[in-house]
Amino acid sequence: MPYPEKFTGFQVNGPETWLEFHKNEFQPKPFGDYDVDIKIECCGVCGSDVHTISGGWGEQHFPLAVGHEIVGKAIRVGPKVTLVKEGQRVGVGAQSYSCLECRQCKNDNETYCQHQLDTYGAVWPDSGVVSQGGYSSHVRTHEHWVFPIPDALDSTVAAPMLCAGLTAYSPLVRNGCGPGKKVGIVGLGGIGHFGVLFAKALGAEVWVISRSHSKEADAKAMGADGFIATEDKDWNVPHKMTFDLIVNTANSSEGFDLDAYLSMLDVHAKWVAVGLPEGEGFKVKNTTFLSNGCFFGSSHLGSRRETLEMLQLAADKGIKTWLETVPISQDNLATVMQRLKKNDIRYRFCMTNYEEQFGA
Amino acid sequence: MPYPEKFTGFQVNGPETWLEFHKNEFQPKPFGDYDVDIKIECCGVCGSDVHTISGGWGEQHFPLAVGHEIVGKAIRVGPKVTLVKEGQRVGVGAQSYSCLECRQCKNDNETYCQHQLDTYGAVWPDSGVVSQGGYSSHVRTHEHWVFPIPDALDSTVAAPMLCAGLTAYSPLVRNGCGPGKKVGIVGLGGIGHFGVLFAKALGAEVWVISRSHSKEADAKAMGADGFIATEDKDWNVPHKMTFDLIVNTANSSEGFDLDAYLSMLDVHAKWVAVGLPEGEGFKVKNTTFLSNGCFFGSSHLGSRRETLEMLQLAADKGIKTWLETVPISQDNLATVMQRLKKNDIRYRFCMTNYEEQFGA
Repeated sequence: MPYPEKFTGFQVNGPETWLEFHKNEFQPKPFGDYDVDIKIECCGVCGSDVHTISGGWGEQHFPLAVGHEIVGKAIRVGPKVTLVKEGQRVGVGAQSYSCLECRQCKNDNETYCQHQLDTYGAVWPDSGVVSQGGYSSHVRTHEHWVFPIPDALDSTVAAPMLCAGLTAYSPLVRNGCGPGKKVGIVGLGGIGHFGVLFAKALGAEVWVISRSHSKEADAKAMGADGFIATEDKDWNVPHKMTFDLIVNTANSSEGFDLDAYLSMLDVHAKWVAVGLPEGEGFKVKNTTFLSNGCFFGSSHLGSRRETLEMLQLAADKGIKTWLETVPISQDNLATVMQRLKKNDIRYRFCMTNYEEQFGA
Repeated sequence: MPYPEKFTGFQVNGPETWLEFHKNEFQPKPFGDYDVDIKIECCGVCGSDVHTISGGWGEQHFPLAVGHEIVGKAIRVGPKVTLVKEGQRVGVGAQSYSCLECRQCKNDNETYCQHQLDTYGAVWPDSGVVSQGGYSSHVRTHEHWVFPIPDALDSTVAAPMLCAGLTAYSPLVRNGCGPGKKVGIVGLGGIGHFGVLFAKALGAEVWVISRSHSKEADAKAMGADGFIATEDKDWNVPHKMTFDLIVNTANSSEGFDLDAYLSMLDVHAKWVAVGLPEGEGFKVKNTTFLSNGCFFGSSHLGSRRETLEMLQLAADKGIKTWLETVPISQDNLATVMQRLKKNDIRYRFCMTNYEEQFGA
């Protein structure tokens, strides 16, 4: 196949028709000196995809191809690229630009750069091109956000780590997860299951906190040391002031008794939310925080350094994403998005068989 | 004067008559092996006193003498006391008991002990006696909560540090306040003014954040490097993602634009609330925390170790409480409480002339 002038992807036209995927050609941003073109091999399916195309996160730039857990082959690298070699197997996650010059970028916090751009749906300032995601033939990305994949990791295992995995991994390592620490993971979905796998790999005592007992066996199989179901009476009482860190991966804050959760934190310990539920937020009482001086906060993705560390940890420890692979197609994307919206997946989809749709 | 069997204090009978102080005798808790009896010389006036006697914090045990910024002379020490000597000038703050055996107590977090008791209004489990505060002739306190006062500090300067000062000091030192850090103090009242004095003494760049410019000159005189008035348009914009720590000492959350405040925090930096406004709390949006991964939390008093460090820092650096002294009496207590309720004090009251009321 000759090198493509245009890329091809499965685009959605708007939230009213969010389950209709159209296979369109689109013009990528102009190729820059630091850019890498990647021929995509597979792409994980993230809750963000559903929030974005179904209108839950508000206005978007359509038509849009989503997907930001990409693994493929670097088929062209810009003249100034030093981090990636042509032919290398690489990944791209949810972020594709930051200025690399501000205080945040220089402190390993490029994910919080005020100029950051997302892998899909962002407008490139110079060209006005809207970035397109990984349900496509190719993706063009600045080398800083292109991550070599260790040989020991299958592509479909690695892909979901690039958003869901990193989202779980970064708050763990930034907040002291390790031996001797008791860490809670709220919600056992795509992100949560990585939270369990990585927190265990980092050596912590890991507890899953879920609404019901339905996922208890899975949690234990992933390595969780304990399981708390909030449908049980006084579920938080035995754990009062004992957790060193709780990462909230739940995708809904409906009926959430935040006071009960926070009461389980040790003095000054942190509750870190990594999901971004649709809706208005929730009420916080001053007294909630007073009894243990705990902290409530958030985390957004993670840095390049953390991505590389995470992939290496997964390779070294043989961490396996729990996943269901699905050949990419218009119909299958519609099915997968509907199932994800209903949380009908244990625990991550990965779209595969790209060659059948986009050529070898 | 013979050693008293009973103590005498100015008690309030309930929230309906919270400005009527009655000079009553009361029975202190039984003298324990680790207890210290202190003849009180002066006592600072804390916002907690108003919240407690006026009903803002709910049910209390009346009749009650409040006041928990106490300085006086140790006139009797129990047989097992090693931290305090008879005759020594000492202070007592807002806390008077913790178990000293739990995980929290052993980690310099005795203020978060689940068995902690307050200096006034708490029920001693053994005797059922309700603890009485410092608008009294004497106070009987376990040595762990009795702090020797450095000679360089006047009693009236030291007294308000024992609650307001410590409340400001502890979150500063626990969250990295020091040279090279930009620290914000929200609200310039009793606690806030200590926040400025201590943050400067610890070497930080200090900004006061207040509703209006009315206290700007005072803030600068205390050593603040900058002043932000939230009545100004776009007050937060020049400070976006630049603060390493913001301590909220404001006593009200009415009309509080929390999003604007938190937007000034650097990545993962903390907002620590130390006031306990009456009322229900406020709404938090998930997106607020996402742009900088900041943390929202709280802090309660501080430890014995921190109290001693703070007093020594104040002695070494010549830190002076901005205060108005008022001779203790029924009428003056009523006046002071009313003025405090209206925030009509710059910046702390201290009740004095105890000998006139309680004898030499």
